Amino acid sequence: MSHQLLIVGTVAFDAIETPFGKTEKILGGAATYIGLAAAQFKKVDAGIVSVVGDDFPQANLDLLTQNGINLDGLEIVKGGKTFFWSGRYHNDMNTRDTLDTQLNVLADFQPKVPAQFQNAEIVMLGNLHPAVQLSVLEQIKNPKLVVLDTMNFWMDTTLNLLKKVIAKVDVITINDEEARQLSGEYSLVKAARVIRNMGPDHVVIKKGEHGALLFHNEEMFFAPALPLEEVFDPTGAGDTFAGGFAGYLANSKDISFENMKNAVIYGSNLASFCVEKFGTERMQNLDKKESKERLKHFKALTQFEINLTK
Amino acid sequence: MSHQLLIVGTVAFDAIETPFGKTEKILGGAATYIGLAAAQFKKVDAGIVSVVGDDFPQANLDLLTQNGINLDGLEIVKGGKTFFWSGRYHNDMNTRDTLDTQLNVLADFQPKVPAQFQNAEIVMLGNLHPAVQLSVLEQIKNPKLVVLDTMNFWMDTTLNLLKKVIAKVDVITINDEEARQLSGEYSLVKAARVIRNMGPDHVVIKKGEHGALLFHNEEMFFAPALPLEEVFDPTGAGDTFAGGFAGYLANSKDISFENMKNAVIYGSNLASFCVEKFGTERMQNLDKKESKERLKHFKALTQFEINLTK
Repeated sequence: MSHQLLIVGTVAFDAIETPFGKTEKILGGAATYIGLAAAQFKKVDAGIVSVVGDDFPQANLDLLTQNGINLDGLEIVKGGKTFFWSGRYHNDMNTRDTLDTQLNVLADFQPKVPAQFQNAEIVMLGNLHPAVQLSVLEQIKNPKLVVLDTMNFWMDTTLNLLKKVIAKVDVITINDEEARQLSGEYSLVKAARVIRNMGPDHVVIKKGEHGALLFHNEEMFFAPALPLEEVFDPTGAGDTFAGGFAGYLANSKDISFENMKNAVIYGSNLASFCVEKFGTERMQNLDKKESKERLKHFKALTQFEINLTK
Repeated sequence: MSHQLLIVGTVAFDAIETPFGKTEKILGGAATYIGLAAAQFKKVDAGIVSVVGDDFPQANLDLLTQNGINLDGLEIVKGGKTFFWSGRYHNDMNTRDTLDTQLNVLADFQPKVPAQFQNAEIVMLGNLHPAVQLSVLEQIKNPKLVVLDTMNFWMDTTLNLLKKVIAKVDVITINDEEARQLSGEYSLVKAARVIRNMGPDHVVIKKGEHGALLFHNEEMFFAPALPLEEVFDPTGAGDTFAGGFAGYLANSKDISFENMKNAVIYGSNLASFCVEKFGTERMQNLDKKESKERLKHFKALTQFEINLTK
């Protein structure tokens, strides 16, 4: 109860095409990836607020609960169909086309935060309609930290509402192109400053294979993405990053800037696993020892010894 | 004499257009940028092997010698015209069009390494025709470390000769697209392995604003580019990086992998200054204290405290 992390976001079906192959409808959704990443932290009690239809398989529900994720806030709509997204990645794996989006039960979703999660200290608002994110914030009593993830779709379609959410959060995570769109600035340093002025004290700009930048006041921190032999499927990498970030903060109960640096590293570390297989496959049974082992690579990749006192 | 760095590369006129403005013919060239970067290291005795025409102003020669760069190996061709390059950067500053290239005196250049530099311990082969690079290597007696910088133009036009040079060097620095072209691999991890098999023990892949990767055996190190408010002119950033890298190694007389990590950081640090003004302007009078001060930003940007022994 004491390390609660409330997660809002889609629980979905995805159909994915990459240069390496294509999938049928598989488990996906922002909240799913965030939850599986947060499940890596043993003190974290994570709960998802979301909605699915009754076409959503019991096996998927079991998978989430077996990872310790509380589903009391997951509404199952009788006769409803689960949100579906389908996309095709280009050869560079950095860009993709959306082939199909079926909102289904998401269209009329009214989120209800279970009573036992209304005091959650950390809230992770995964990518979803800003109205849903706002409704969840109104049901939360006194969060220590609210982290928002969003995307260009909401900037294009419902910017004013999105800005209301942005004004209420402590951390926003978005990708580089979205940061440029939201701020009107090309330089990410300038973009982060403009976005901080919209509300959040901390801005995380995700650059995919080029890593992530954390901004706070005039300070910056950078975490690279681990260079991999092969990126198999980038789907969910950004959500996994966000889940690792929020999960680490919930686990350590320390929301200082110094500790957020570590959270960015943990998020990057978990995202490096996510992309190694299709969908959630790699994250479903990720061994905690294995993820800790890979952190050593992040240290070796970035740490150097230059003595500046000489 | 004991910390010699031999630099081969163009000394040139550039005319540059960026979204921020355009220049007339100004001082440019790979060897120029490399030399100015290496001039930041006080123990380094740097000498340039290159060629210019007698249209090259005395003021430019003075600028280089005032920065402690030895020009005994710089041939001045009477009645000849200096190499000229002109380019226009796109709005993203990551891509550019070449508007004009006039080889001029470079077309028939036969490099002559001055006697006092034939024992140089570190040789930096800046971007230039592979035949010139090869000729310089044949005049060098017993270098401890040879660093090669090259570009896609030579891969397109004289690949076999370029591969002969690659087979003889210890470190190659190229950008990400060039690494992909040279290796036929999209993944930079795989690309670096293929390129190491061509000869060099170390591969540095420059990713511009996304930083630089150093590969050696199965080890990797990454240095970000410092996120800047504004990139004014990227011309010479890659050469400045290479000059900082080679200059730091020459200065410290330590070519271990651990020390090469520092060299990559120093190279990135100097490159972050280069792009702040047009051409060589920022590097001409860069204060050593200022560049040391900025290293602190690199530390703050990348260093974190995760204890993995717990």
